[in-house]
Amino acid sequence: MPLTERIEAAISCAIARARAGRAPRQLSAALDYATAPGGARIRPTILLSVAMACGDDRPDVSDAAASALELIHCASLVHDDLPCFDDADIRRGKPSVHRAFSEPLAVLAGDSLIVLAFEVLARQAITDPARAARLMTALAERTGMPGGICAGQGWESEPEVDLAAYHRSKTGALFIAATEMGAIAAGHDPDNWRDLGALIGEAFQVADDLRDALLDETTLGKPVGQDALHGRPNAVAKLGVDGASKRLSDILAGAIASIPSCPGEADLARMVRKTAERIVPNVPATAGRA
Amino acid sequence: MPLTERIEAAISCAIARARAGRAPRQLSAALDYATAPGGARIRPTILLSVAMACGDDRPDVSDAAASALELIHCASLVHDDLPCFDDADIRRGKPSVHRAFSEPLAVLAGDSLIVLAFEVLARQAITDPARAARLMTALAERTGMPGGICAGQGWESEPEVDLAAYHRSKTGALFIAATEMGAIAAGHDPDNWRDLGALIGEAFQVADDLRDALLDETTLGKPVGQDALHGRPNAVAKLGVDGASKRLSDILAGAIASIPSCPGEADLARMVRKTAERIVPNVPATAGRA
Repeated sequence: MPLTERIEAAISCAIARARAGRAPRQLSAALDYATAPGGARIRPTILLSVAMACGDDRPDVSDAAASALELIHCASLVHDDLPCFDDADIRRGKPSVHRAFSEPLAVLAGDSLIVLAFEVLARQAITDPARAARLMTALAERTGMPGGICAGQGWESEPEVDLAAYHRSKTGALFIAATEMGAIAAGHDPDNWRDLGALIGEAFQVADDLRDALLDETTLGKPVGQDALHGRPNAVAKLGVDGASKRLSDILAGAIASIPSCPGEADLARMVRKTAERIVPNVPATAGRA
Repeated sequence: MPLTERIEAAISCAIARARAGRAPRQLSAALDYATAPGGARIRPTILLSVAMACGDDRPDVSDAAASALELIHCASLVHDDLPCFDDADIRRGKPSVHRAFSEPLAVLAGDSLIVLAFEVLARQAITDPARAARLMTALAERTGMPGGICAGQGWESEPEVDLAAYHRSKTGALFIAATEMGAIAAGHDPDNWRDLGALIGEAFQVADDLRDALLDETTLGKPVGQDALHGRPNAVAKLGVDGASKRLSDILAGAIASIPSCPGEADLARMVRKTAERIVPNVPATAGRA
């Protein structure tokens, strides 16, 4: 089964369970809306690619891990779009959850998706308790405090921002989770896979800065110029478009070089290049060829 | 060690880990503020009391479960107080988290506490993977969708409310989690303990309705008359003060009768009576003697 099908099936299955029985209908619909149709599903794709590079001997565990990670990502988008944060009216080319439903339902949808992510992994513990426990610890570390995406968002409320900690947690954390969890799901040591995730996360941040600077709102599917508006650090502001594109190429080369020696090494390098093509806007050729 | 000391120590330990290293300071402070000083810690007290009635052979697991449950409860209070829900300025006699810090930090504090709750249990999986997995599944079921406190809050956005599902999930869910998780933590079957949790939850709901109707804001430590304001179902509105007090006595008697036969049965019945005294306002003597 192709990766995208595995990912969509795993997410649908989790959401279906959350909507079962006597569930409130609006919140059920909001969970669907927040998770499908998805974006590029980059994080679970990386997770499954790493799991396959490591042998993917327990595809059920890998699928659960991939869906859990994407559910956390979706939750973070729903909460980040709230009026008190980005106040974004559109996301993935359609109204954001609080605009399509309501602010209470957006808060609750985010909360429910976080819980669901851990529930998906907890249920996997019946068949493989050791891997499930490590997956949950890794996901929690990269989601909550002190170093996960909650911490990353939290840095934006600080009078003085630790830029390294900010980027590592805000954008990097779920990419690190992707490579760590892919390795864990296939019974491998996550330590060797952390650099790959961190570098992909860094590349994604620079690519996002380029997109934010160069594309219009319709193409982007969300409001542009948000970093400048919220005074957030931005690679284009610091290095210019050419400088940021060059930086992106360097990071991606580093990411590919960081892949640990494993049977699926070549396939994984191909996936990283393909992911790069998807995330990089049509700007200077140096980035596109990375 | 007395129960309260065990509970406070477990919560402090979890929060300390979430604040470790390079964490953003404001969000760190918000986590502390949202969890200490706590309220009556009723849910973790019930959890530990059930665990002790079941032998409490793994107190480390019980303590982790108790802190995880209380963290979820604290998270729910922080999010419920948000302007888009109850818009409450005070909680436990001090400014609510979004008033003391900010709305973004309140959303993030709630999110981080949810993640932390599952992280606490996941870390317990190293020593007892089977119990940890069951604890996480139980906690997720009673927190998220379709039947947890998120679902309960979600019912308030429905045009037509299923009152039974609403009460069971909104107030009952975390009390059911308390008795289930207490049993699981001590290696017992949670099925026999579900009724006790459900009945304590029902009693708590009626007691809360009485408090909401009878006490002033200073004594209550939160705004009064919220149910009437938000058009929520309320036992006093339905049965009157005397009727609701009588109902409360009956439920508590049923709760004590539902305690499964176990070595700590008598102690547990005493705890339920003591809890009832704590939650019941100084109103008709029928309730106080329950």
